[in-house]
Amino acid sequence: MSAAFPPLREELQGIEPYGAPQLDVPVQLNVNENPYGPSPEAAADIARSVGEAAVTLNRYPDREFSELRTGLAAYLNGDGGDGITPEMVWAANGSNEVMLQLLQAFGGPGRVALSFAPTYSMYPEYARDTLTEWVAGHRAEDFSLDLEAARDLVLEQQPTVVLLPSPNNPTGTALPPEAVTMLCEAAASYEPAGIVVVDEAYVEFRRTGTPSALELLPVHRNLVVTRTMSKAFALAGARLGYLAADPAICDAIRVVRLPYHLSAVTQATALAALRHAPELLGKVEELRVERDATVAWLREQGFEVADSDANFALFGRIADRHAVWQGLVDRGVLIRETGPDGWLRVSIGTAEEMAAFRQALLETIEETARDTPQDKFEQKDLA
Amino acid sequence: MSAAFPPLREELQGIEPYGAPQLDVPVQLNVNENPYGPSPEAAADIARSVGEAAVTLNRYPDREFSELRTGLAAYLNGDGGDGITPEMVWAANGSNEVMLQLLQAFGGPGRVALSFAPTYSMYPEYARDTLTEWVAGHRAEDFSLDLEAARDLVLEQQPTVVLLPSPNNPTGTALPPEAVTMLCEAAASYEPAGIVVVDEAYVEFRRTGTPSALELLPVHRNLVVTRTMSKAFALAGARLGYLAADPAICDAIRVVRLPYHLSAVTQATALAALRHAPELLGKVEELRVERDATVAWLREQGFEVADSDANFALFGRIADRHAVWQGLVDRGVLIRETGPDGWLRVSIGTAEEMAAFRQALLETIEETARDTPQDKFEQKDLA
Repeated sequence: MSAAFPPLREELQGIEPYGAPQLDVPVQLNVNENPYGPSPEAAADIARSVGEAAVTLNRYPDREFSELRTGLAAYLNGDGGDGITPEMVWAANGSNEVMLQLLQAFGGPGRVALSFAPTYSMYPEYARDTLTEWVAGHRAEDFSLDLEAARDLVLEQQPTVVLLPSPNNPTGTALPPEAVTMLCEAAASYEPAGIVVVDEAYVEFRRTGTPSALELLPVHRNLVVTRTMSKAFALAGARLGYLAADPAICDAIRVVRLPYHLSAVTQATALAALRHAPELLGKVEELRVERDATVAWLREQGFEVADSDANFALFGRIADRHAVWQGLVDRGVLIRETGPDGWLRVSIGTAEEMAAFRQALLETIEETARDTPQDKFEQKDLA
Repeated sequence: MSAAFPPLREELQGIEPYGAPQLDVPVQLNVNENPYGPSPEAAADIARSVGEAAVTLNRYPDREFSELRTGLAAYLNGDGGDGITPEMVWAANGSNEVMLQLLQAFGGPGRVALSFAPTYSMYPEYARDTLTEWVAGHRAEDFSLDLEAARDLVLEQQPTVVLLPSPNNPTGTALPPEAVTMLCEAAASYEPAGIVVVDEAYVEFRRTGTPSALELLPVHRNLVVTRTMSKAFALAGARLGYLAADPAICDAIRVVRLPYHLSAVTQATALAALRHAPELLGKVEELRVERDATVAWLREQGFEVADSDANFALFGRIADRHAVWQGLVDRGVLIRETGPDGWLRVSIGTAEEMAAFRQALLETIEETARDTPQDKFEQKDLA
């Protein structure tokens, strides 16, 4: 056997698999999970629904997951959408499978996918896995989009897929509707036209007055709005991402989806969760309050904090962010080293978890400043 | 907006999504499902397990699905494997996701995936979706492999992935161990070496004396054996495919897998099913007997029937197979128009379902012969 075993594609050699470090510490604030699990009633209904589905698990699942699409459409029409039909809804095993399918259908060799950094670190992986060229523009100093510059970049690069998270991860920044409109119009002006994917994974946590891009679906045929049940729905373990778009976009995805990609168990679980939507979403308001309090507290401590419409906060600027991350881990609090150098991201947990975070951060700052008094925490420019 | 909306990749335009016709007829013998669902006890245990997992569904699932890998390794060591460790096992949402991941990691532009036709019709789709060149050699008249010719083709094409279903779908043909050995050695002789994927989706239905390729894992480092819970385990609705291979191959797949691709619900379901393996697999013997009886009966009627180690039978040769397929549908029996022209595939169902199939086939033959007496059923050469 040759030395080059196994025959991994050359472009993939030496790449570490994606994923946040999984450490067993008491306070997990690293992957933007909802800290509140389903109630015993909701969990029991999920179990009951799966139990019903289990009796016919010898059969393949509904390939078109029609009942689930109907349920998701109804939910979206109650949260910013209007007139969304089941034919306008698609779902897969997590938003990341939805995104991969979008890139498989609309990206590929000779085509460009474009987003604006800093942004979700999986996007370039979807592009890599589909052989799509990846182009990253830049966000402004406050992580907002310079709309004119963004439009110019779209017109110059002519991407077939524009990825616009709103709120953005890891910054928490939501996009104004005029940004979506401007980029949808730009992407519709060349051949082949581009689709504009507004990734609303965190949108249920948006601040009052921030709209959802769902409102723009009737206006822009090339607009795709993706959502997930992982965050506000508190269902990260169930892996259910979905989108709303023109039915022609859903039909196109059907060409690249693996047949029967959504199991009968997943469909039953998601349908049960939708029946318990008011309860599962019931902690969103509490988390928004905790988020705003966390942002305010971090600013009081002298940190720069990005405005957040999500269930996390990005704060900086820290000369040695790894030291601070480690100091928090040493105190039982796991946050995430992500985003631009000099910044850290903390997910919003329970009030108790956020108190533990604040205490650990204060101790870490004090300790690190004592150990290395020179410039460990000086302000630092973005790379 | 341009006329070319949505911007589906040119190579995908006009392609119909993969999938057998889903018709609502009483006797479903078209997608090789196990006709027996889980018992009430097994279904209840699946529900209970999912109910336990549901309480923490707000958290992401175990990205490495360690408990499930351990359970699958133990099962394989009881069905042809020996010394298979959890690090040698990988799983995904159905065998088709496993195959896609294998092609993503080891295929790609400039590389070749190779199989021998007639074979599983999804293989070229995996190749297409990963931009891997697809090469199909040919099977002999009886659907076996001409080993010398197969080896020569592998040495000539130097594929990085060889796909060898055993038993083959749609023919039911199992491979002898010497075929696996010969092709593993051939694929190891060039640079970069090829992996040889023996797709054992149907292997639990093999006839007495037919070995599993698992026995050859200790000998061939480039051998990958894939399995599924869809068929013998009667769990098509749960979407759980898996493989056993050198740990380096599992590590390589981790680079391309989407993070958290296996939900906590799927992991709980599969673990519960493994606990009930003796029961779920308990109908395999009955289905093997029914399979052999079906093959014998079809031969008695004058059909040519491929030897089958699977839970289906391919029979021919029929001048107008669509007419026969339609005649069966009209009588409430759904089989599959697949494989070479002139052949039809019937899945093995319950004794009652197979009686309905036999009756419907006899009636259809009589009717069609009466309507078009000339040559509707004459022997026909393979295309």
